[in-house]
Amino acid sequence: MALRVGVIGGGQLARMMVPAAVELGIDIRVLAEGPGMSAAIAATAEGDYHDAETVLAFARDVDVVTFDHEHVPQDVLRRLEEAGVAVRPGPAPLAVAQDKIVMRRRLSDLGIAVPDWAAVHDAEELGRFLADHGGRAVVKTPRGGYDGKGVRVVSDPADVADWFVAVAEAAGDQALLVEELVPFTRELAQSVARRPSGEVVAWPLVETVQRDGVCAEVLAPAPDSAGRLADVAEETAVRIATELGVTGVLAVELFQTADDRLLVNELAMRPHNTGHWTIDGATTSQFEQHLRAVLDLPLGATGAHAPAAVMINVLGGPGDGDLAARYPAALAAFPEAKYHFYGKEPRPGRKIGHVTVLGDDLEDVVYRARSAAAHFDD
Amino acid sequence: MALRVGVIGGGQLARMMVPAAVELGIDIRVLAEGPGMSAAIAATAEGDYHDAETVLAFARDVDVVTFDHEHVPQDVLRRLEEAGVAVRPGPAPLAVAQDKIVMRRRLSDLGIAVPDWAAVHDAEELGRFLADHGGRAVVKTPRGGYDGKGVRVVSDPADVADWFVAVAEAAGDQALLVEELVPFTRELAQSVARRPSGEVVAWPLVETVQRDGVCAEVLAPAPDSAGRLADVAEETAVRIATELGVTGVLAVELFQTADDRLLVNELAMRPHNTGHWTIDGATTSQFEQHLRAVLDLPLGATGAHAPAAVMINVLGGPGDGDLAARYPAALAAFPEAKYHFYGKEPRPGRKIGHVTVLGDDLEDVVYRARSAAAHFDD
Repeated sequence: MALRVGVIGGGQLARMMVPAAVELGIDIRVLAEGPGMSAAIAATAEGDYHDAETVLAFARDVDVVTFDHEHVPQDVLRRLEEAGVAVRPGPAPLAVAQDKIVMRRRLSDLGIAVPDWAAVHDAEELGRFLADHGGRAVVKTPRGGYDGKGVRVVSDPADVADWFVAVAEAAGDQALLVEELVPFTRELAQSVARRPSGEVVAWPLVETVQRDGVCAEVLAPAPDSAGRLADVAEETAVRIATELGVTGVLAVELFQTADDRLLVNELAMRPHNTGHWTIDGATTSQFEQHLRAVLDLPLGATGAHAPAAVMINVLGGPGDGDLAARYPAALAAFPEAKYHFYGKEPRPGRKIGHVTVLGDDLEDVVYRARSAAAHFDD
Repeated sequence: MALRVGVIGGGQLARMMVPAAVELGIDIRVLAEGPGMSAAIAATAEGDYHDAETVLAFARDVDVVTFDHEHVPQDVLRRLEEAGVAVRPGPAPLAVAQDKIVMRRRLSDLGIAVPDWAAVHDAEELGRFLADHGGRAVVKTPRGGYDGKGVRVVSDPADVADWFVAVAEAAGDQALLVEELVPFTRELAQSVARRPSGEVVAWPLVETVQRDGVCAEVLAPAPDSAGRLADVAEETAVRIATELGVTGVLAVELFQTADDRLLVNELAMRPHNTGHWTIDGATTSQFEQHLRAVLDLPLGATGAHAPAAVMINVLGGPGDGDLAARYPAALAAFPEAKYHFYGKEPRPGRKIGHVTVLGDDLEDVVYRARSAAAHFDD
């Protein structure tokens, strides 16, 4: 009988697990939020992942439960574990990914380099942090943010007055996260995968280019990163995965500073946009690896097929959204490009696909990847 | 709206189109023969492909119909075309793939090198062919054979007396195909893809190793084939695809003789076992290419990721059939191998999966691929 993996959430990350599952002979089942989701082809149930009964019923028919996102509430995760379901990653590591203040505190306790930070409960506390950090800082809501949402650069506590109102009104000890504005020279990402029995493997360190808080481009491997930089990034990500007990893929987003320090920016405990290049560019993709890891199967080799791989995100543009009409020109112009689309209705700024190009010369690969993706961005 | 491809037949070839469709953002739908087929994840209908109404109903919701196999009857194919359905490959080229006598005649008419052959209606005609060809020959039933089924090496017409009884009892002008026993030094296969607008692309020529009439191993590219041999193979396959008007993938199986002639053995108008290495080893897999071709989209690049790729079929063995129990040892031993399983119940001799390994040194790659596959063959 085939191994069965249940994925909670029907977005593009669940969708991109499907090809890997089909090839490996794994039975993949998705609990989708509703009809027509990106991963609809594997959706065997629809329902609200906040509802423990819905999730428990879904989990009954699979060998292990994993996730398209990190938003499943802790009480639902605990209920699954109490019912004997293998939940990977488990509630404890997910708690760190679900709350940016918990994450900052945990990484600081582990002695891992992060930006200066504080949990601030009101304008006065934020004002003190600003005064100590040159008058500007980044404020983040601890929960629910992604792709630049829930993130503001502030120079005055009044810039997040609305968030403080929400904090004051919320039950429990709520706060906002404030961080120094790191004068980084570039952003990097290090993905690793860890299985419950402890094996951890790492892909090459990549450089990421963000636009408006959204990942726009990924260069693999990160230029000029061989040696100490790659070693430190890998050690950092392996240590985080191991100390937090992550199972599956862990993506660590990093700032590189002018003096070549690496500071951890964000963590994602699932396949991540910065690892999409591995579908076409690495011996084992992050999606196959995630399935192997959550099933506690031996992990696959992570080497790259070519000296350079570049991934460009395709975002919905202001156009008519008829993607299929763009295929002929794009595919004809760049027959070597790998086009990926997520079955999502294009809306301005929404991630609807990505393009990856491999090659020997980074500059040429960047040019071709951008040109291929540009066929879809208006 | 996503482009929609309908695949008739739910076997492993339909299954392996699913990952390519998911990545490209194509809506793939399968008419499966019944529940639990290999391509069940994409099955939107179940029914008998001999029944025109069943197939017509399935075809109504897709942009193009293609196939997991070549067995859909001509009258059903014609009904689809009359109803305005795009059928790719179409009835005319499929007629050539469906009947080995039609195929031999057509290739001979095109002046393409094939083994000496004849259509024989009775023991006397077969006896004459045997007398002219050293007393031994290969007899094939023109229809329905695959993987060595419907093929016998004979030295006496009595060896196929049962088949002649069936021929005599059948309606219409029936015959058996008899061919010379070609003294080949090895078998090769050349895959190409053609789209309706005429573009044709070719993958590297491969060497195939058959065991008991079933493809066992594929080496890509075929050793010592660069230059004239590869050129002739590619020209031959491109010419066949073009002259017959094939759309989608065409695999041409070839005999190489001691004097380096290439004779066409078989044709397959669909992705083919000898092209499975392209999933992991080529820029565009045969499954992605087939989808692009039948949708009349520009075709993808066919270059290889590594100097050598080796694919080994996994056949069901006499064991308990618990494949999942074999994963840990196999995956741990060869983390760089790509394992593919078709969701099929193992039965002795049944193709249930394949393993592909890439590398620089053919001998080493063959060793690792065989060793990885051997974890599943008992």
